[in-house]
Amino acid sequence: MRAGRYAVGIDFGTESGRALLVAVEDGSEIGAATYRYRNGVVDERLPTPHDDVELEPSWALQDPEDYIRTLQETVPRLVSETGVDPADVIGVGIDFTSCTMLPTLADGTPLCLLDELRAEPHAWVKLWKHHAAQPEADRINAIAAERGEPWLARYGGRYSSEWFFSKALQILDEAPEIYARADRLLEAADWVVWQLTGEETRSSCTAGYKAIWSKQHGFPGAGFFAALDPRFEHVVDEKMSRRISPIGSRAGGLSEQAAAWTGLRPGTAVAVANVDAHVSAPAATVSEPGTMVIIMGTSNCHILLGDREREVEGMCGVVEDGVVPGLFGFEAGQPAVGDLLGWFVDTCVPSGGGDVHAELEREAAKLRPGECGLLALDWWNGNRSVLVDTDLRGLLVGMTLATTAVDIYRALIEATAFGTRVIVEAFERAGVPVERIVACGGLPDRNELLMQIYADVTGHEFFVAASKQTPALGAAMFGAVAAGAENGGYDSIVDASRQMAGLRPESYRPEPSHREVYDRLYAEYVRLHDLFGRGGDDVMRTLEHIRGTA
Amino acid sequence: MRAGRYAVGIDFGTESGRALLVAVEDGSEIGAATYRYRNGVVDERLPTPHDDVELEPSWALQDPEDYIRTLQETVPRLVSETGVDPADVIGVGIDFTSCTMLPTLADGTPLCLLDELRAEPHAWVKLWKHHAAQPEADRINAIAAERGEPWLARYGGRYSSEWFFSKALQILDEAPEIYARADRLLEAADWVVWQLTGEETRSSCTAGYKAIWSKQHGFPGAGFFAALDPRFEHVVDEKMSRRISPIGSRAGGLSEQAAAWTGLRPGTAVAVANVDAHVSAPAATVSEPGTMVIIMGTSNCHILLGDREREVEGMCGVVEDGVVPGLFGFEAGQPAVGDLLGWFVDTCVPSGGGDVHAELEREAAKLRPGECGLLALDWWNGNRSVLVDTDLRGLLVGMTLATTAVDIYRALIEATAFGTRVIVEAFERAGVPVERIVACGGLPDRNELLMQIYADVTGHEFFVAASKQTPALGAAMFGAVAAGAENGGYDSIVDASRQMAGLRPESYRPEPSHREVYDRLYAEYVRLHDLFGRGGDDVMRTLEHIRGTA
Repeated sequence: MRAGRYAVGIDFGTESGRALLVAVEDGSEIGAATYRYRNGVVDERLPTPHDDVELEPSWALQDPEDYIRTLQETVPRLVSETGVDPADVIGVGIDFTSCTMLPTLADGTPLCLLDELRAEPHAWVKLWKHHAAQPEADRINAIAAERGEPWLARYGGRYSSEWFFSKALQILDEAPEIYARADRLLEAADWVVWQLTGEETRSSCTAGYKAIWSKQHGFPGAGFFAALDPRFEHVVDEKMSRRISPIGSRAGGLSEQAAAWTGLRPGTAVAVANVDAHVSAPAATVSEPGTMVIIMGTSNCHILLGDREREVEGMCGVVEDGVVPGLFGFEAGQPAVGDLLGWFVDTCVPSGGGDVHAELEREAAKLRPGECGLLALDWWNGNRSVLVDTDLRGLLVGMTLATTAVDIYRALIEATAFGTRVIVEAFERAGVPVERIVACGGLPDRNELLMQIYADVTGHEFFVAASKQTPALGAAMFGAVAAGAENGGYDSIVDASRQMAGLRPESYRPEPSHREVYDRLYAEYVRLHDLFGRGGDDVMRTLEHIRGTA
Repeated sequence: MRAGRYAVGIDFGTESGRALLVAVEDGSEIGAATYRYRNGVVDERLPTPHDDVELEPSWALQDPEDYIRTLQETVPRLVSETGVDPADVIGVGIDFTSCTMLPTLADGTPLCLLDELRAEPHAWVKLWKHHAAQPEADRINAIAAERGEPWLARYGGRYSSEWFFSKALQILDEAPEIYARADRLLEAADWVVWQLTGEETRSSCTAGYKAIWSKQHGFPGAGFFAALDPRFEHVVDEKMSRRISPIGSRAGGLSEQAAAWTGLRPGTAVAVANVDAHVSAPAATVSEPGTMVIIMGTSNCHILLGDREREVEGMCGVVEDGVVPGLFGFEAGQPAVGDLLGWFVDTCVPSGGGDVHAELEREAAKLRPGECGLLALDWWNGNRSVLVDTDLRGLLVGMTLATTAVDIYRALIEATAFGTRVIVEAFERAGVPVERIVACGGLPDRNELLMQIYADVTGHEFFVAASKQTPALGAAMFGAVAAGAENGGYDSIVDASRQMAGLRPESYRPEPSHREVYDRLYAEYVRLHDLFGRGGDDVMRTLEHIRGTA
């Protein structure tokens, strides 16, 4: 029995940070505390007193002091409100948005905290959704393709503007003096762990999914970086590190300073940093091959483990030790799911009183599969997997004068389910089996119809993670693993997952009669998917081109 | 000078009848009076006391007594309110929805007015939008195609369920005793003229567009009717008439009884009946080849005159003497225009206060062509011209998470304009030139943006008829022609049109920079139009099929 042992997981999100205290024994959630970042998402002007500095469109920054304030504000409250003895807190883990990165001095001081650089946007943290590095991403993709860089296939053939080297290269392009001044360029996730432990570590998860690192091949060669920019040739050795720590290992012990911030004991085990999506897998019970985890929220993120590397069409990345040590973690994604339904409600639904989503879902649930007579391509925010094409656009077909908002709402749900089925089939075709599916995130909690449609469309039973905050739970689990079994924790995330994670008793089973109708609709979806997505018909790109020149 | 001469036009619509008193000299509108039909559209149950009789779906009936009440309620009011001397009213014309038809006795008594038949739905007037005769239309089309009936080409290759013989055949199929009892089957338009004059006439317009009659070839042969049903072999000779009166001629003089109903003088000239869309052409100044009239409202109806018969893809009909005596009147149509915008507002726009259409148009007018990034196929109610396919469905493509309701509204307007351009080009391709366009109906009155987009998309200047009630004005003009020049009227509709019809001073001219963008968008429209409309991609039909079996 490990009664009376606890771990803290801290989930650093886009607008706030959230700390969760869980029992190591069974993962039960004892308490939670949230800190809303004082400076939130910095996307129009820098925080005062430098609010005369306006940001370009597509910029999105954060303030690293908000991360420290999160530690200071949440953990002490958690400890005092739950009445837990800090001596019983055996481990701390964090997860973060990614790629969220910043430049620092050699001692970890963020450049934006230096008086002389506070008014310089490139000195701040670039948030995951900072999209201003598209020219750099385009350069990376063009040069990688030209050089036949073998790693490109691991990222579905396309490196994102959101990722590490796109952002780093943007600093070099636009603010070479900041680039020169930076001793370190690193993920905010790794920076926070550095602040907690006093030691710099770099997570295999962020390095693998965002910074083109692989356990087997390391980083791309200097020749590739030099081709991007001669000054970029040695970025890894000059600004980063080749020492990558596998997730599931101990980054260090809590420093005196961090102990003072958090009210926990110095030396408390701190885990190597993790990423919000990936850390959700073990928190949703999944630490072995064969079960896909889908984190369903504004977007869908699909995580699947495999025992060998495979090339899967349009995946976001495959990283050894990326999710669970010793296994290959595959990631795929759909960029608009909850966002798509939210768009529809905001844009197109006569605002009644009450919860519009709930009302639409209730009415949509009365329709039989196929009854709405509509079919959509769910590409309102482009298509990530499997087409990897941000220029794709939404399509809706089948409307009559009798079509209702409820019909459209249901068709949009169905379209995202068809999109998930395309991803599942791509994995299976590539030899990465999908035997079970577990969902977590915000959508499964609120949308029974959506879950049933996903089950009916994919033909898979959908299980749902018991925890409503899988990222923070997963982080806490990694904290318990960092402590190790000899300190009352676990020796592996697989053990922690077995003990601390669970599923809800209810699941969603495919209804055979629905399946049959959805098979017919899916055949149409795939046909249109290929027609508009694989170059048969370029209308979406043409419309965008005409719009750009209008 | 014809000062002090007047004509009355009566427009029998779907929900009400409207009488207009105009000066013969210049068409100025002196007064108007409307009667809302007591029994309106009968589409759920028969009027009391037979409201225990429920109608099947797709049925739509009217009460012929509502037409008589229209005469009784509107004309006397018009005379008394305007202070016009009935002796100065030289002619009366009517226009009607079509095909709206009924069975009567030999003396014109509607079967539904016989006590013993009042509870029998098939004894009532079948309104134009009675859609329950689809099986009969299918039979007519199949047998006509099988027999290679040459007239089929005049109707764009497809005879509608709304038209005369579909409805007549439905009576025979479902109520043979009513069919047997009917001495006459005729258009309600012709029936009202019969009631006004005491003499049965049949209009060349309704006979030509709805009953497969042509001046040159008459009706289809008995062999065709016999192939539909042996009992139908002699329908023309038994229930109809081969004596067809060209529009623009005098049907007779007002009977004593009709004079009593209306307060006009017995013997006042009454014109052969007309149809609302077709009668609008001369009221919109058009009585010669080369100018297309578009009646723009819930749907678009395109009328174009030519000096010889041509085969035009997907037109609704071509009839010699159908619009103006001596010319061929071509008709084409788009089944959802105002209805499409109305659908969007009802289904998809957060209900604010005020006029939602006006607000959407104001905002949509701020967008540049192409800026919305969307393209639609405007087939929410199928496609009449040029594809003649009721199974086609709406399509919208190009949506992003930033797409607004205003963007969609504009794209829907543009789609209907592209649809009109397809029709214009079909006429030109067939050798029927379109040199000018005049719009009339409800939409041009309220929608400046829509009119500008139509001009930009088609490349034609759009003129707008001065009258806001072109059907009633056109009917009055035909009344003045029935009176003839020797009685203070006109000898031809061409003369009447020159004197009595006018255009607004302002018109909509294509803006060259807009044209260029719309040419590029139109190329995409035509590509998708052909892909989804001409058999390249059957998704719309497949969705309907799946829906039907869901």
